[in-house]
Amino acid sequence: MGLQDRPIGVFDSGIGGLTVLKQIQKVLPNENLVYFGDTARVPYGTKSKKTIIRFSIENALFLLKFNIKLLVVACNSSSSYSLPSLKRNFKLPVIGVIKPAVEASVGMTVNKRIGIIGTAATMRSMQYPRQIKKINSKLIVKQKACPLFVPLAEEGWINHPITGSIAKEYLTELKKHRIDTLILGCTHYPLLYKTIKRAAGNSVTLIDSAYYTALKIKKALQKQKIDTKRKKKGICKYFVSDEPERFSRVGKLFLEKSPKGIKMVVTDA
Amino acid sequence: MGLQDRPIGVFDSGIGGLTVLKQIQKVLPNENLVYFGDTARVPYGTKSKKTIIRFSIENALFLLKFNIKLLVVACNSSSSYSLPSLKRNFKLPVIGVIKPAVEASVGMTVNKRIGIIGTAATMRSMQYPRQIKKINSKLIVKQKACPLFVPLAEEGWINHPITGSIAKEYLTELKKHRIDTLILGCTHYPLLYKTIKRAAGNSVTLIDSAYYTALKIKKALQKQKIDTKRKKKGICKYFVSDEPERFSRVGKLFLEKSPKGIKMVVTDA
Repeated sequence: MGLQDRPIGVFDSGIGGLTVLKQIQKVLPNENLVYFGDTARVPYGTKSKKTIIRFSIENALFLLKFNIKLLVVACNSSSSYSLPSLKRNFKLPVIGVIKPAVEASVGMTVNKRIGIIGTAATMRSMQYPRQIKKINSKLIVKQKACPLFVPLAEEGWINHPITGSIAKEYLTELKKHRIDTLILGCTHYPLLYKTIKRAAGNSVTLIDSAYYTALKIKKALQKQKIDTKRKKKGICKYFVSDEPERFSRVGKLFLEKSPKGIKMVVTDA
Repeated sequence: MGLQDRPIGVFDSGIGGLTVLKQIQKVLPNENLVYFGDTARVPYGTKSKKTIIRFSIENALFLLKFNIKLLVVACNSSSSYSLPSLKRNFKLPVIGVIKPAVEASVGMTVNKRIGIIGTAATMRSMQYPRQIKKINSKLIVKQKACPLFVPLAEEGWINHPITGSIAKEYLTELKKHRIDTLILGCTHYPLLYKTIKRAAGNSVTLIDSAYYTALKIKKALQKQKIDTKRKKKGICKYFVSDEPERFSRVGKLFLEKSPKGIKMVVTDA
């Protein structure tokens, strides 16, 4: 198979990466995709740098079996820590979700005040503030870990008043800093878009990295001339490390359709 | 070393089992203990039977290296699914946290109506209702999964008003069934004792399996004459599968002191 016609590999700690997958399918409808969700070990956001890197390498090794032409790390916690290791170890383009959101936020802020919300691991890594400051050191950047958002989204309490109260509490400090741009630094958060928007206030623009990541993938493929020339719609294969039932059920919330033909694989053995 | 002086092995999906460990240390102060928390793959409560059994076997294999005389499964999700496999595979007494709570609840209910709260996996297993009905088929048993309690406890929102609102919502249905006894079917829940008690109402007795599990261990050791005869205080060795920092920090909430000398091990490789 020519390089152009090989699939794109996408991994996530579990289900959240489906928000990224959905955007890739919109922006690059003819590309074939292989998605791996590490549902046996999810979440990564409460775990250490060392463990997140180990898991990410194992996930990449699994996807490489499919002869992928590009690797997408569709998980913020993993993108925060594992990109240098992945790029060092593997000889293919690797794209994470942080840089696309960083670039979009820097382009969008008017008052030069950007907020970021995400998991404990992503916030601890300091990748967002560091990468924003690298582009423009004068920007004011504030971040806040929101560990309850993932379980709330997975519980399906999307429009629940309690989710609203929790969002208000989490965003109090960021609002005090008068941010006008807020990065949703976790792939689960787009599910809570309306609730977070209400808590952040109308004047704040929310940035969901999924769309910008998909654009970045398109650009990378075109630059290296490895985008598919096929005219028919691509397919997506799904693999998970735990049994598929929950992934299929909860995945519907993220993908807006049920992921089909999901297979279970053990990657850590 | 004589059988009597060998340590007791205790495993949990992560930190929650420390509530059980604390009670073992109170009831059996002279026993040596080895605790393993599978913090790299925590939680188990959202995962499938197959995966929970696989992880539990791996955890037991790790603890067997310490020549343990008895194995305690200090995790409800794991006790729900893995006890038959563990007992079939390993030739040592295995004690879970479900049966002790079941026996206590059946002894305590006056109006014959028992409620159970726990993780999605524990509730799905139906172990609590089945074991209660086995003792007395006329008892009314109602259960409710409370997936947000674990992240709330780990976030430290122990007495937070939002935790109170969530507890009220989760317990609405059980209250309608006029239960007088409520089993805390997850080792994290004792941390939320006051909040759950307030939401359940004063007339409801809460059952925390930790204490009853410790009593059951004592009885099993004495029956088999393998309880230690040493007069000095036992020690506990701690092992975790992710880096120890979070376990040490959050573990303090559970153990009421910082677990000391925690070592990281990779058990799935």
